[in-house]
Amino acid sequence: MNLPQHVRLVEVGPRDGLQNEKQPISVADKVRLVDDLSAAGLGYIEVGSFVSPKWVPQMAGSAEVFAQIARKPGVTYAALAPNLRGFEAALESKVEEVAVFAAASEAFSQKNINCSIAESLERFVPVLDAAKQRGVRVRGYVSCVLGCPYEGAVAPEQVASVARELFAMGCYEVSLGDTIGVGTAGATRKMFEVVGRDVPRDKLAGHFHDTYGQAVANVYASLLEGISVFDSSVAGLGGCPYAKGATGNVASEDMLYLLNGLGIDTGIDLDKLIAAGRRICQVLGRDNGSRVAKARQA
Amino acid sequence: MNLPQHVRLVEVGPRDGLQNEKQPISVADKVRLVDDLSAAGLGYIEVGSFVSPKWVPQMAGSAEVFAQIARKPGVTYAALAPNLRGFEAALESKVEEVAVFAAASEAFSQKNINCSIAESLERFVPVLDAAKQRGVRVRGYVSCVLGCPYEGAVAPEQVASVARELFAMGCYEVSLGDTIGVGTAGATRKMFEVVGRDVPRDKLAGHFHDTYGQAVANVYASLLEGISVFDSSVAGLGGCPYAKGATGNVASEDMLYLLNGLGIDTGIDLDKLIAAGRRICQVLGRDNGSRVAKARQA
Repeated sequence: MNLPQHVRLVEVGPRDGLQNEKQPISVADKVRLVDDLSAAGLGYIEVGSFVSPKWVPQMAGSAEVFAQIARKPGVTYAALAPNLRGFEAALESKVEEVAVFAAASEAFSQKNINCSIAESLERFVPVLDAAKQRGVRVRGYVSCVLGCPYEGAVAPEQVASVARELFAMGCYEVSLGDTIGVGTAGATRKMFEVVGRDVPRDKLAGHFHDTYGQAVANVYASLLEGISVFDSSVAGLGGCPYAKGATGNVASEDMLYLLNGLGIDTGIDLDKLIAAGRRICQVLGRDNGSRVAKARQA
Repeated sequence: MNLPQHVRLVEVGPRDGLQNEKQPISVADKVRLVDDLSAAGLGYIEVGSFVSPKWVPQMAGSAEVFAQIARKPGVTYAALAPNLRGFEAALESKVEEVAVFAAASEAFSQKNINCSIAESLERFVPVLDAAKQRGVRVRGYVSCVLGCPYEGAVAPEQVASVARELFAMGCYEVSLGDTIGVGTAGATRKMFEVVGRDVPRDKLAGHFHDTYGQAVANVYASLLEGISVFDSSVAGLGGCPYAKGATGNVASEDMLYLLNGLGIDTGIDLDKLIAAGRRICQVLGRDNGSRVAKARQA
């Protein structure tokens, strides 16, 4: 066993989490969440999304959120910016890093962002060019890396092809997402093994959903493959639009509990993280998706 | 990676699960649960407990349950029998296999069964002697193997000592239980590594609770250590008396989903297992603790 000594958590709760919650959430509550997360020691927070509010109404207030958060030195505040217009808006909001997202499944790409995988990658070229000119780092997401709600199985080679393109285009890191949470530990390892032939493993991140209860095991499997960056969502915010009533992103608390148990350094305070998750769950009137938070409530 | 090709599931829902549920459950509902589980392909079901109903009221009807289940050839129907009186009662009910339980933590042993670890082991001697005479196999449980609610950390050497004694006394298999679900993957592997020096790994089983969301990851970690028998509870029945509102045993469905994903044979039909879990949750008016069952409900 040769586990990484340090792991970086990318907190996606305010974006990937909240965009899948149904209730309207005030800018003030979003700001509070982001500030709670930075206070807990998270070094990277995906705060919002600069996309058309027509598509993602929950993210409409991203500019206001960015204007009001208390920026803590050393913390990266990032946002999705899938096109040049979004990128410019993000820069106006002093976003420090942006992310673009592609799918590993052709059918998902068509249904989710209304274009082919190749077309989506083409659309990112001007974003990456502009980002390079402005000295802004771009993170790439690949969704459906372990299965697609429309196509079923997704070959690791297909994931590798999309990840390779994003990396070649200039994404400094590519996050591989099991969007519908169907993957298990063996498939996770195989996927990183295959993608790792095309993109260095220290440029890859894991992004797991707990829909089938496998996320923490998949994180452990990824660690065994040398992956040391993981996306997660405080309180397991978010759901799964493809499996109603199912769990969303892996809860940051449960993942941190694993990492603490393995003696891996993250710089995050578990108690403060639990408190941040409890607060947003109260605001949302939502069950806390973190098992650690529930156990500690006793 | 050298994972086992076949894994045996020990279904503890009707016993370890139900005994931690608060609602009264009729004999008919318990019988139905056991029969649903055998129909799903489970080869080993812990049906009940022959202990004083004063201590575990939920298990009072175990003899009636044993009298009414439809015994399926090839399935082992087992029960807890911690003393000679319980053992005789179990045999009257045609129990095919019995189990005894000790703790790895001295404080837990005192608080849970009111005697020291050494005393508890002494009490099992007549049970094991009688079982040997009658040709009945005895399974041993060790609780608190990765932590104790009173003592905190538990040394793997302490677990090894209790497991070794149970094995030496004649238990054909020793199930190592993370009773309060605090363990993580690294500690799980270390524990099996240490205990495995004293008891052959093919005589050890893993028993995980999902209190902190780590159970599926701990099962995967155990598989990597060559463990091929696991206890689990359909629908994650049961709770944790030491962390109110927390999850109980790992859900059989979620563990089976992992094993199926790894290509490991179990002989169990996931759909039928999910149906069995849904039915008992309806009876109990209880949230289904299996994430797989929830995801499939979409």
